[in-house]
Amino acid sequence: MLTHSSLGKVAFIGIGLIGGSLALALRRANIVDEILAIDASKAALAEALALGVIDRAVDWEDLSEADIIVLSTPVDALYTVCQSLAQISLKETVVITDVGSTKGSVLDAIRQAFGDIPDNFVPAHPIAGREKSGVAAADATLFQRHKVILTTLDNTDNRALGIVSRIWHAAGALISYLSIDAHDEILGATSHLPHVLAYLLVDMLDQDLHHEEIFTYAAGGFRDFTRIASSSPVMWRDICVHNPNVLRRLLTQYRRRIEAFETLLAEGNGDDIETIFSRAKRARDTHYQKEQQS
Amino acid sequence: MLTHSSLGKVAFIGIGLIGGSLALALRRANIVDEILAIDASKAALAEALALGVIDRAVDWEDLSEADIIVLSTPVDALYTVCQSLAQISLKETVVITDVGSTKGSVLDAIRQAFGDIPDNFVPAHPIAGREKSGVAAADATLFQRHKVILTTLDNTDNRALGIVSRIWHAAGALISYLSIDAHDEILGATSHLPHVLAYLLVDMLDQDLHHEEIFTYAAGGFRDFTRIASSSPVMWRDICVHNPNVLRRLLTQYRRRIEAFETLLAEGNGDDIETIFSRAKRARDTHYQKEQQS
Repeated sequence: MLTHSSLGKVAFIGIGLIGGSLALALRRANIVDEILAIDASKAALAEALALGVIDRAVDWEDLSEADIIVLSTPVDALYTVCQSLAQISLKETVVITDVGSTKGSVLDAIRQAFGDIPDNFVPAHPIAGREKSGVAAADATLFQRHKVILTTLDNTDNRALGIVSRIWHAAGALISYLSIDAHDEILGATSHLPHVLAYLLVDMLDQDLHHEEIFTYAAGGFRDFTRIASSSPVMWRDICVHNPNVLRRLLTQYRRRIEAFETLLAEGNGDDIETIFSRAKRARDTHYQKEQQS
Repeated sequence: MLTHSSLGKVAFIGIGLIGGSLALALRRANIVDEILAIDASKAALAEALALGVIDRAVDWEDLSEADIIVLSTPVDALYTVCQSLAQISLKETVVITDVGSTKGSVLDAIRQAFGDIPDNFVPAHPIAGREKSGVAAADATLFQRHKVILTTLDNTDNRALGIVSRIWHAAGALISYLSIDAHDEILGATSHLPHVLAYLLVDMLDQDLHHEEIFTYAAGGFRDFTRIASSSPVMWRDICVHNPNVLRRLLTQYRRRIEAFETLLAEGNGDDIETIFSRAKRARDTHYQKEQQS
């Protein structure tokens, strides 16, 4: 017997920073009856219970009770997780969603396990800081005023979409709806590409003859530029390996622009150099006006 | 009659943010007798006088009074400034210094005007934020705890080096001494290269089919990474045009690393990808440990 305000039982498969934060947000919003979790790590489950992030650690069979299932493991684990999930007799009304940043690999994992993408699966990608990790860092406010992208497919069920929208609305997130292709293109450009570029730059300079001085004399701009090279190498390896196509195309495109710029330098073509710089400054300032004024 | 604590009369050629801030710092430290200035802009001179940044706006001939001359114009103006300076009968004991970020072009301008680099010229490069500009933004504390690099040449006079060192010590800067080549390599790697890469990335994404969404959905990492693309296009055009060689070599080197990474992506070589990312993270975290902890 669900009242309008309750979404029933929600089960998290994988209870780390993201799953744990969403669990805390849903509990605070009081829109679920019970929060269940499965995790490969018994320690993580014990910690999640002790911190009051979840109500119950469960087994795979118990997922038959769940009204909502959130896939919140690292990308690498998704294939086996989906295989296990496909063996369980789930509620007919169950809604499945995820929190992955590379939708291509999530859909692959689902397809391998279920044969196709079920109507009740709504891929979601919360764009939130992930500098920390683990359930101990979980925070009910992590998603507040952060974007979450719900990537609908042609066959996505509207009721499922409505429920997943309610979850993220309850967490305080700003919800957008994009196609999978647009999502992958946009995330590739704004997240995957800059991360790889930062890693490659820091790695190159670390191998420079002057590497000690390079890091010592670098000013604030360089630190800002390379900050994302401190992100988790394993997480970013997975993102690259599971989502190589958009990234490769963007890297090739970017590399050709560098080559063209080298030509401008060789020619001493100050006019074209200034045109590029001015265009870029205008684009950035237009989009991030507030930031500029601060 | 100079006491030990006074360096006599200092003249700034160009009185903007950097020259003005150094003038204020020297006045506060009470180690100069009088602060003179020349500037192509009468408005800038009037403002500098009104703000108490300088004591007197002077003509070129008056530089014969100066004990210290600071070249603090934009890089582009240096060639004509040095030509004018070479016509003046300067004190035999005068010390000349500058504040330019591209030492190659400064030395070129000096060489063209004086035939060679005089013993009494000490190239200096204060590494300080330059987001603002103009004498109205001048700040006596701008250089405090910021690095300044004094780039000595084989023939640099030790007395001149001592005086320029005292100037920057009085401004609260952290002084280092590097060869011109090391300076250019280090600045190319930590400043010029990241700026060009940020400009090229923003310009490329601004021309993407999804450019509106790209800027809208971008998270904090992307903003940090592209912040320096808001820098002055004219200043950075000048830096590129006057200092192309190190930058070109670094761009080529970087472009080849991107190409090699594309191969790793095509091969799905997660091990090598993780090795690069881990090495980069370790390098950055080692050098910026304090920042990581914050």
